[in-house]
Amino acid sequence: MASIPSGIPEKTIERLSEYRRTLLACHRQGITHIFSHVLAGMHGITAVQVRRDLMLIGFSSDTKKGYDVKVLIDFISRILDSDRPVNVAVIGMGHLGQAITKYFNGKGLNLRITAAFDVDPAKVDTTIDNIPCYHMERFERVVEEGDISIVIVSSPTKVAPDLVVPIINAGIKGVLNFTSTRLNMPQGIFVENYDITTLLEKVAYCVKEAEENENNNN
Amino acid sequence: MASIPSGIPEKTIERLSEYRRTLLACHRQGITHIFSHVLAGMHGITAVQVRRDLMLIGFSSDTKKGYDVKVLIDFISRILDSDRPVNVAVIGMGHLGQAITKYFNGKGLNLRITAAFDVDPAKVDTTIDNIPCYHMERFERVVEEGDISIVIVSSPTKVAPDLVVPIINAGIKGVLNFTSTRLNMPQGIFVENYDITTLLEKVAYCVKEAEENENNNN
Repeated sequence: MASIPSGIPEKTIERLSEYRRTLLACHRQGITHIFSHVLAGMHGITAVQVRRDLMLIGFSSDTKKGYDVKVLIDFISRILDSDRPVNVAVIGMGHLGQAITKYFNGKGLNLRITAAFDVDPAKVDTTIDNIPCYHMERFERVVEEGDISIVIVSSPTKVAPDLVVPIINAGIKGVLNFTSTRLNMPQGIFVENYDITTLLEKVAYCVKEAEENENNNN
Repeated sequence: MASIPSGIPEKTIERLSEYRRTLLACHRQGITHIFSHVLAGMHGITAVQVRRDLMLIGFSSDTKKGYDVKVLIDFISRILDSDRPVNVAVIGMGHLGQAITKYFNGKGLNLRITAAFDVDPAKVDTTIDNIPCYHMERFERVVEEGDISIVIVSSPTKVAPDLVVPIINAGIKGVLNFTSTRLNMPQGIFVENYDITTLLEKVAYCVKEAEENENNNN
């Protein structure tokens, strides 16, 4: 469980990120105002939840016309984003690393993947999706010179523990870990451990429960 | 936010899945017993949390020697797993779909990826990592004949809304959605929407907050 170093709950931060993506899509379609219940419906939650989240970050608005889409985007961005773009590195350019890189490239986010690392000679010193791929040996130097503060770990699970020391030494501040090994970092480095197996096992459990409930009702 | 059709909280289900993976690793190393505080330490949480989770599922044990690893694995498996293996399909065999397939193949889980779907002629009617890849046109028939109850959606975001109807028609019961579009399904179909952008923006926010706190303290 990740701990958030501020008063805003973790789930609210996640929802703010989701609201913003929805609002950006609305903005692109020329929608200027949106009611809380419409935004809520698009996220499968209640309008009360949306209003509570926005109250938590101090956003208030003339509710007769709904929220001003552009104003709300800028407000959420001031909460979530740094003043300048944040540079991100990917460790492990296998299928998952490449999927993530492709996914972020050109999305116009405040987060930019600027470097990738691997040990495979076929990948090192090439560019993949316009991102230079370096040998892991050069990690500390490239991170420092490239002002990189966040890494995405998509390496094979078995090498993940070996990455802890380089990540600490390079001065990385945030880690998004997709391997099956938890990375326990010292205080001051925020880690989000995310194992896809957990998600899939949760879905499977819910399906099983629903089936059992159905059988009990018949 | 996903709702779980039973009394066990969503976060407990996720942790049970994580405990089991840790316990399986312990078992492979010949470890027969483990104390709650050791298990807790490996997950970066408190022993109280571990004991509370296990109490919720009705697990009790002789605590003098700690938990019996094999007994606890079997107990958690009876909660999480169906009696028979669950068949899973992947829609979209781009980098992400292939990463997920490779990741699960041969893991010996109760969940098995048994079919993949795409529309790319280069992929359709081939096998990728030993998984047959079918044209999306054949989705309903293959799902029915293959007794598939769960799908992982790793298609391009823009086609995700078009998948809702086939997923409903095929009788799918659980969806793990990695695209940036929320899939709102009717009651009876459990959906876990997971957007990687949300995770990364959360990490970035936490890094920013930590930096601001540090600057304020200096």
